[in-house]
Amino acid sequence: MGEHHTYTPIASDLAYTFGGVEPVASLRSGDTLTLFTEDCFGGAVTTVDDLPSRVCEFPYLNPVTGPFFIDGAEPGDTLAVHFQSIVPARTTGVSSTFPHFGALTSTSHTASLQPPLEERVWLYDIDSAAGVVRYRARNAEYTVDLPLDPMHGTVGVAPAAFEARSSLTADTHGGNLDTPELRAGTTLYLGVNVPGALLGLGDGHARQGQGEVCGVAVEVAMTTTITVEVLKQVRTRWPRIESDDAIMSIGCARPLEDAFRISQHDLVAWTAELTGLDTLDAYQLVSQAGTAPVGNVVDPNYTMLARLPKHLLPDAAAIYGGTHRRLRTGGAESR
Amino acid sequence: MGEHHTYTPIASDLAYTFGGVEPVASLRSGDTLTLFTEDCFGGAVTTVDDLPSRVCEFPYLNPVTGPFFIDGAEPGDTLAVHFQSIVPARTTGVSSTFPHFGALTSTSHTASLQPPLEERVWLYDIDSAAGVVRYRARNAEYTVDLPLDPMHGTVGVAPAAFEARSSLTADTHGGNLDTPELRAGTTLYLGVNVPGALLGLGDGHARQGQGEVCGVAVEVAMTTTITVEVLKQVRTRWPRIESDDAIMSIGCARPLEDAFRISQHDLVAWTAELTGLDTLDAYQLVSQAGTAPVGNVVDPNYTMLARLPKHLLPDAAAIYGGTHRRLRTGGAESR
Amino acid sequence: MGEHHTYTPIASDLAYTFGGVEPVASLRSGDTLTLFTEDCFGGAVTTVDDLPSRVCEFPYLNPVTGPFFIDGAEPGDTLAVHFQSIVPARTTGVSSTFPHFGALTSTSHTASLQPPLEERVWLYDIDSAAGVVRYRARNAEYTVDLPLDPMHGTVGVAPAAFEARSSLTADTHGGNLDTPELRAGTTLYLGVNVPGALLGLGDGHARQGQGEVCGVAVEVAMTTTITVEVLKQVRTRWPRIESDDAIMSIGCARPLEDAFRISQHDLVAWTAELTGLDTLDAYQLVSQAGTAPVGNVVDPNYTMLARLPKHLLPDAAAIYGGTHRRLRTGGAESR
Amino acid sequence: MGEHHTYTPIASDLAYTFGGVEPVASLRSGDTLTLFTEDCFGGAVTTVDDLPSRVCEFPYLNPVTGPFFIDGAEPGDTLAVHFQSIVPARTTGVSSTFPHFGALTSTSHTASLQPPLEERVWLYDIDSAAGVVRYRARNAEYTVDLPLDPMHGTVGVAPAAFEARSSLTADTHGGNLDTPELRAGTTLYLGVNVPGALLGLGDGHARQGQGEVCGVAVEVAMTTTITVEVLKQVRTRWPRIESDDAIMSIGCARPLEDAFRISQHDLVAWTAELTGLDTLDAYQLVSQAGTAPVGNVVDPNYTMLARLPKHLLPDAAAIYGGTHRRLRTGGAESR
Repeated sequence: MGEHHTYTPIASDLAYTFGGVEPVASLRSGDTLTLFTEDCFGGAVTTVDDLPSRVCEFPYLNPVTGPFFIDGAEPGDTLAVHFQSIVPARTTGVSSTFPHFGALTSTSHTASLQPPLEERVWLYDIDSAAGVVRYRARNAEYTVDLPLDPMHGTVGVAPAAFEARSSLTADTHGGNLDTPELRAGTTLYLGVNVPGALLGLGDGHARQGQGEVCGVAVEVAMTTTITVEVLKQVRTRWPRIESDDAIMSIGCARPLEDAFRISQHDLVAWTAELTGLDTLDAYQLVSQAGTAPVGNVVDPNYTMLARLPKHLLPDAAAIYGGTHRRLRTGGAESR
Repeated sequence: MGEHHTYTPIASDLAYTFGGVEPVASLRSGDTLTLFTEDCFGGAVTTVDDLPSRVCEFPYLNPVTGPFFIDGAEPGDTLAVHFQSIVPARTTGVSSTFPHFGALTSTSHTASLQPPLEERVWLYDIDSAAGVVRYRARNAEYTVDLPLDPMHGTVGVAPAAFEARSSLTADTHGGNLDTPELRAGTTLYLGVNVPGALLGLGDGHARQGQGEVCGVAVEVAMTTTITVEVLKQVRTRWPRIESDDAIMSIGCARPLEDAFRISQHDLVAWTAELTGLDTLDAYQLVSQAGTAPVGNVVDPNYTMLARLPKHLLPDAAAIYGGTHRRLRTGGAESR
Repeated sequence: MGEHHTYTPIASDLAYTFGGVEPVASLRSGDTLTLFTEDCFGGAVTTVDDLPSRVCEFPYLNPVTGPFFIDGAEPGDTLAVHFQSIVPARTTGVSSTFPHFGALTSTSHTASLQPPLEERVWLYDIDSAAGVVRYRARNAEYTVDLPLDPMHGTVGVAPAAFEARSSLTADTHGGNLDTPELRAGTTLYLGVNVPGALLGLGDGHARQGQGEVCGVAVEVAMTTTITVEVLKQVRTRWPRIESDDAIMSIGCARPLEDAFRISQHDLVAWTAELTGLDTLDAYQLVSQAGTAPVGNVVDPNYTMLARLPKHLLPDAAAIYGGTHRRLRTGGAESR
Repeated sequence: MGEHHTYTPIASDLAYTFGGVEPVASLRSGDTLTLFTEDCFGGAVTTVDDLPSRVCEFPYLNPVTGPFFIDGAEPGDTLAVHFQSIVPARTTGVSSTFPHFGALTSTSHTASLQPPLEERVWLYDIDSAAGVVRYRARNAEYTVDLPLDPMHGTVGVAPAAFEARSSLTADTHGGNLDTPELRAGTTLYLGVNVPGALLGLGDGHARQGQGEVCGVAVEVAMTTTITVEVLKQVRTRWPRIESDDAIMSIGCARPLEDAFRISQHDLVAWTAELTGLDTLDAYQLVSQAGTAPVGNVVDPNYTMLARLPKHLLPDAAAIYGGTHRRLRTGGAESR
């Protein structure tokens, strides 16, 4: 087992891109790291009167903790990031509408001549012990408890081709994936594009619905523990998630059907590899047995996941050489 | 409680459009009907050598049983169709690839200069007692059991505006929705566009994955029992499903994000109506608590669902005046 | 040469679908027809206070004159429709915004929670002698003259597969193509799907910009003269236009890139056929020499055209067996 | 008038991103620069046997000459880049298909299970004196001359938000716009995002069709002369082109309708500003008088242009304070 590090950034340590940023620390394959992530508003929204478009300044949105240089990670390798735990660091979560952003409004790109929707902030009480977040309507006496289901919206490495990409965007390098499937107990696989991989993460959500419809989840700072492992000379083209029960391929694109196609295409190839089936037989199996959890339909690239239950595979332990099982166990031991 | 009818069509009774077809029988609001539906290939694919592009003849694809004239149904009303049971009428289900059709191939519309994928047929053993369908690879010794989860891909009424639409297409009138959420125990709500509504259904699936990726589910003829009810002067713009646990709005469109937008927009309005929340408060609740089950990403119109758990609503019994609960109970009694 | 007929419908003669309507008259291959078409509002908008959403009643929008039964036209044939002349039948054209319709607003399908844009009507003076239509701003003293360029937005035949489609939609059968390329002097080729073809046309535009951005062109009733010809056993999959200078393939679909793909795919195949080039050589030629005139980006299906100059072809007279040249000349003679 | 500089890069001077690269030289507002740009293949394709996927190495594709630091350019300013001349630097142009890239093939994002199309190279003779490029089929004796119409596919500045973007992509910063409208005699306006703007350009095309359908134009190195001017405190959100005859707004996005919406939205706002019309009156004018030239439908972001003839504006000389006219004249003098 590797070492256990901790890292808490100050505001000036935060990054706003994947790529183009110097690492804040180094980790070795096998190391565990407990870190703090700020919320997507940089902690600036604390009351319902803190309208994000006023209290936040572009491009200082969606800050990422890191990047971390992973010793020995080279282009052509895969970085496994196992999430041991994701724990809200505050007892209040924040959501909002944002002018011309979200799925049910025209936007900067799906441009219309209509004025934006009202910008409104909602605060959620987070009760980690009870495992709930409390929704409270702003214009009515209406309150319901939703399951607490902490996740990270944004996890990625530096992109290829000398690019630096805003932390608001997702692509092959990960980034702003905004899928509720990225919760504690899962392992995220990312292809390494630059020496050291340059891993960063942020954008904790106490929970989000599928699609992140209004564009903003229940945003909250997080205290998160991850274990990283470098899989040498294993290529991963699009981000993948492994849970105890399933394998998941992530597609990031517009239009949404391309995110769907990418994710399903990757899952078919992955299934063929793990079962020995030819492409068409794998296509058929995925067609009947797969699900397609929606990530977000609001960010610069939408995300769709393609998911297959592991019990349909002949040897689930063979997935990435048993990395998830190893990290899952090791993680449990090291907590 | 209404009467219980049975109806078994012969081949020449089958319809290939919604609209433009004379009714085969009449039902009254409250009546129950047990009917037989052919599979999407008209039963013509029975061995792996029966390639659909050879044994089926366009446009004689996806036959629909009906239409049924529902007495008293008028434009501006809603037709509730409660599925009491959906039972495979054969012990073998069929799937296939089809030239230039499906999500992971170029198509007639997402046109490319590439030749089509191989056309291949798969047969599934359906074991209704065990509740499984058995996948068998064609080019490998690989077999896995998947849960039997019978559903109808195609249920609809005659469209508005004097249209007749192919049974391969979904739109506001329902049609080829191809969502696994349309299973026994649910109620489908469809807006009525013409006198008598002209309900038809078909395209039974022993199961399908989300997205119906290869374009064809585990197709099988069905023996299905429904109860219908006319809700006078209740408008329903897009198809909606109610299960014991959730309300679901269905969007049918291309591109896929428009299917998503339609479904979420309808769910926000429905949620606002059922909770008394204003639009933005409902938008926020749906954003954090909703899911977005994918229907199909292969048909002329894709389908996305927006789903909200009923326990978040103040009075689930108020949904369409308690229709689902009433039909669910009545259905149980009448079986 | 065929006969010259004239036809002027009364309101109750107008059709609102392609398919599902009885023919109003018969023509023979080679016949010429002068007919009257109402504007898309049925003539109901005559002042700036006649807001379309108030004075028009769904589905009585976009009326079509016809359909005409073309003797001898059978499925598998092509119907050539040559436009001899398209002349505004009134001296005032009408345009408007329409609630939740158009390219720069959210719509019923690209759904948002925003209220619609203001509904506003513009009147245009049409000066056929001078060849101009006069734009007048509503909220400013601003007037500019635009070239008169009359065209039909809607021309089609009955669709295949027993369908009846709203005159607001375009597809393989033609319909609401809304392209400014469909002007006098061109020949439209449509695949025949039913005996008699059942040709209808309407939706005259004194002119429109590419994309028909606000959703409504300069709408006006027309007096139009066409000559029709049946090309036996010549298949046409998507609508095509031939002008004196160019061949054009039309794709009708959403998303817009699929309309683009369809049109380019069809043009590549057509170019290969006319040049004897293999597919890739034709693809290359079209890539460097083709243009892509935008039709509409507002209707249920968008339209894109793919256009190749005829002088790049070895024998322009070979296009559809010289039909356009023959009709062009014959038309000139018969005027 | 400013100084006239010349710049010829060696291979190691070339850039592959906008942003993240040190400037190679400085210019002052008003300066003229004659520079050399390599073709998109880095000059590596010289025979039909030089398949791009073999002779080029990712990410060393689409090299850009620059970036150039423009003294005094600051975020919030606009950089005007006037193209005095664009002259092919070689007598042979190159095009090709490329595996899983282009509009009429499935791609990495519009993913399918189909194998790629054949990779094939075409060579074009460029005759600058005659003003033609000669297409030669590969698998037939077929030759046609097309008009020489030199342009730059790729022109941009460093993006905002600390990003560095691949030269293969277009966005608000310009980049791989791939529109035939960017020819000599036009002025490109780009919003400045970083001090010095960091202008780069490359990807010369001897000509291209609209859409750049196969993904590759007639690629050739260029000798190009530009004049740059900084417009202080003038914001430009999306790239704009001014020619002698028209103003054009460029939208870069997927899906294609969003590129369309962006471009039209920007043109409506620009038209409102130049005419004093309110938004809806400008929307109406653009709807009837505008055209929508297609740029590319193949790159990571597609490009659409919205174009309005300048004679419809009350004072064409007011566009960006008369910059185009001034640079057009100055350029003529300095040639």
